[in-house]
Amino acid sequence: MSASAVRFADRLDKVETSAIRELFKLLGKPGIISFAGGFPDVALVDVDGIRAATLAALEQEPAGAMQYGATEGYAPLREQLASFMQAKGASVAADQLVVTTGSQQALDLLGKTLISPGDKVIVEGPTFLATIQCFRLYGAELLSAPVDGDGVDVDRLEQLIVEHQPKFVYLIPTFGNPSGATLTLERRRRVLEIAARHQTLIVEDDPYGDLYFDTPPPPSLLALSESVPGSRDCLVHCGSLSKTLSAGLRLGWMIAPPELLAKAVMCKQFSDANSSTFAQATAAQYLKSGRMDANLKRARTVYAERAQALCEGLRTELGDAIEFVAPQGGLFVWARLTGARGQVADGNEFSRRAIEQGVAFVPGAPFYCEQPDPATLRLSFATSDVEKIREGVSRLARALHAA
Amino acid sequence: MSASAVRFADRLDKVETSAIRELFKLLGKPGIISFAGGFPDVALVDVDGIRAATLAALEQEPAGAMQYGATEGYAPLREQLASFMQAKGASVAADQLVVTTGSQQALDLLGKTLISPGDKVIVEGPTFLATIQCFRLYGAELLSAPVDGDGVDVDRLEQLIVEHQPKFVYLIPTFGNPSGATLTLERRRRVLEIAARHQTLIVEDDPYGDLYFDTPPPPSLLALSESVPGSRDCLVHCGSLSKTLSAGLRLGWMIAPPELLAKAVMCKQFSDANSSTFAQATAAQYLKSGRMDANLKRARTVYAERAQALCEGLRTELGDAIEFVAPQGGLFVWARLTGARGQVADGNEFSRRAIEQGVAFVPGAPFYCEQPDPATLRLSFATSDVEKIREGVSRLARALHAA
Repeated sequence: MSASAVRFADRLDKVETSAIRELFKLLGKPGIISFAGGFPDVALVDVDGIRAATLAALEQEPAGAMQYGATEGYAPLREQLASFMQAKGASVAADQLVVTTGSQQALDLLGKTLISPGDKVIVEGPTFLATIQCFRLYGAELLSAPVDGDGVDVDRLEQLIVEHQPKFVYLIPTFGNPSGATLTLERRRRVLEIAARHQTLIVEDDPYGDLYFDTPPPPSLLALSESVPGSRDCLVHCGSLSKTLSAGLRLGWMIAPPELLAKAVMCKQFSDANSSTFAQATAAQYLKSGRMDANLKRARTVYAERAQALCEGLRTELGDAIEFVAPQGGLFVWARLTGARGQVADGNEFSRRAIEQGVAFVPGAPFYCEQPDPATLRLSFATSDVEKIREGVSRLARALHAA
Repeated sequence: MSASAVRFADRLDKVETSAIRELFKLLGKPGIISFAGGFPDVALVDVDGIRAATLAALEQEPAGAMQYGATEGYAPLREQLASFMQAKGASVAADQLVVTTGSQQALDLLGKTLISPGDKVIVEGPTFLATIQCFRLYGAELLSAPVDGDGVDVDRLEQLIVEHQPKFVYLIPTFGNPSGATLTLERRRRVLEIAARHQTLIVEDDPYGDLYFDTPPPPSLLALSESVPGSRDCLVHCGSLSKTLSAGLRLGWMIAPPELLAKAVMCKQFSDANSSTFAQATAAQYLKSGRMDANLKRARTVYAERAQALCEGLRTELGDAIEFVAPQGGLFVWARLTGARGQVADGNEFSRRAIEQGVAFVPGAPFYCEQPDPATLRLSFATSDVEKIREGVSRLARALHAA
């Protein structure tokens, strides 16, 4: 029975369980090929390396791995993460970051520390679905700047900033989810100049940047900020081990200006006190072991092959029914149904037909906080091998021509 | 420099970094004996058992332990936790609980799902400090019902419920933090009757119930609710592995009426998506291994000896300067300075003198959400051996007589 003793908070009126979750219930169907997930391939996890790291942690630092820890994060992991960022060109000290329970928690802490009900926040259109819901729970009014193959439209972004004075701007500049797009170097500089000029806080969410295919992406906003005066103090950078090491550790980190970092740490105290020290000590030992580079190289090669198979297949088999910019890294292809020659132009309708043909993807509309484009879709190539991807694309082609 | 791009949310005005955190900075002083902590003794963690459990998880279920997981929790762990609760007399199914990132996250999810700014919540006076801050961040107005040696004053609790119609009541009925008190069986029944009569949601936080010294405490409110008609639908129960298995895993759970559980899971999606599956798979394997009973037996014996040493020492060495009810389990002795014969009667002043003598405890005032009793103090016996406890008490006695 429903518990009449339960009366919910008003903030829940702002969010709902996502349409995507309903779609995911259909994925249990036997034999379905899924481009719908947002997960990395668990088969690429270096289980042997993680086992060794855990054993080392339990052997060398049982008191650290088995006890409560500092809210800011386990010191050896903070050191390793700072080095990891330094290797990518960002000057970061261990005490400039907080370890989070996945980068989702970084978003939650940003919401908690920064958003009062009615505050404006600018995101990309489209953006990560759980970001939209997370910020709305804190009462944010979301606005979006459009994204093209070169990342966010910087002119439109500046207009929105001037007009709406947002609390902050949230971007996934590299291999975006769902857009797959990467912000060009020139646009990156302009974003930083805009941030400094208008004293606007920019949140750079970067879970995919290490998963490039051939060549590294442009430096992160964080790395670039050192060459754009006044921009570093306007920057928050969120990182994650979920796509590079293992999602099972549930560890991310957030680098932020000192004042914001301190408040985020205070809020984290009352959110979960600290992230698992067992997971943190394991991750610290893994990073110390030096296995990360080889592990990343392997993942890059595999994802590059899969992305290529998906993009080639889509071009060959779906032809002018679909348009997309091939991503240079990450996990996603973002595509748009053209409706050419009277073909299906609605992502939901295409999704329904695709499921009937035994293949799934996510319609794009839910990724927009406003003005959804119903012709869009997100396809992930991460968890199927090349052969499955080819078969999946054939099924998509059949779905295109089915009624 | 301070980042002028950062403008904080209004909710931060309601909380501050606690006085206790400042005190903890003093504990680094060499040779200090600390009764100040709230942690279990990490030396009691069954590291061998956890190592075996982790190896089993990585061997048998690498995809489960290394990938993202269901927001509700890792299915094998939910099953194990349901069995664990059943063994303690509560009929709980696996789908009636959500796994949380420590029980602190259960508090956070309760705040997020239930508290609108200005809502009233009733807690015990004194109660867990991080509960006060957590609920205040969501805008709760906190009221408190007093606690004596038999737990919360039930008459006063009912008066407050009738007068203030709170969103919910938060209790730590068993070996409370900081009170050490245990709600009697008779009072437990009355709390459940009151909940059913007024359709008031009661949150039972139970991190310490397994740490009894000689005899088990009365059944949990959850277990008892089956014999008090209409009360089960008014009950939330929070559990934790932090004091019984390892705080490093950072795992707790929350049992709640279905409607509330569903909303809490939705909110958890946007808080941290899921708790570490690596930690969850390890915990599930540990519980399956059957080592928990022996591990708990050892912890009970050790904590019982330490509690006895502390209580005997306080009685012998501090005499009429202090009064307290000896706890029957948990980690804490809650005491009150009597001020007899002109002795120190202020917890802060006594703490200052104690630190000078090389011993620390936590003054009690911050544990009250209103009307603090400045004569109170919390002493934890958990992390010092008997010899250290005796020396610590001697130092307290010296602090009593020092100026």
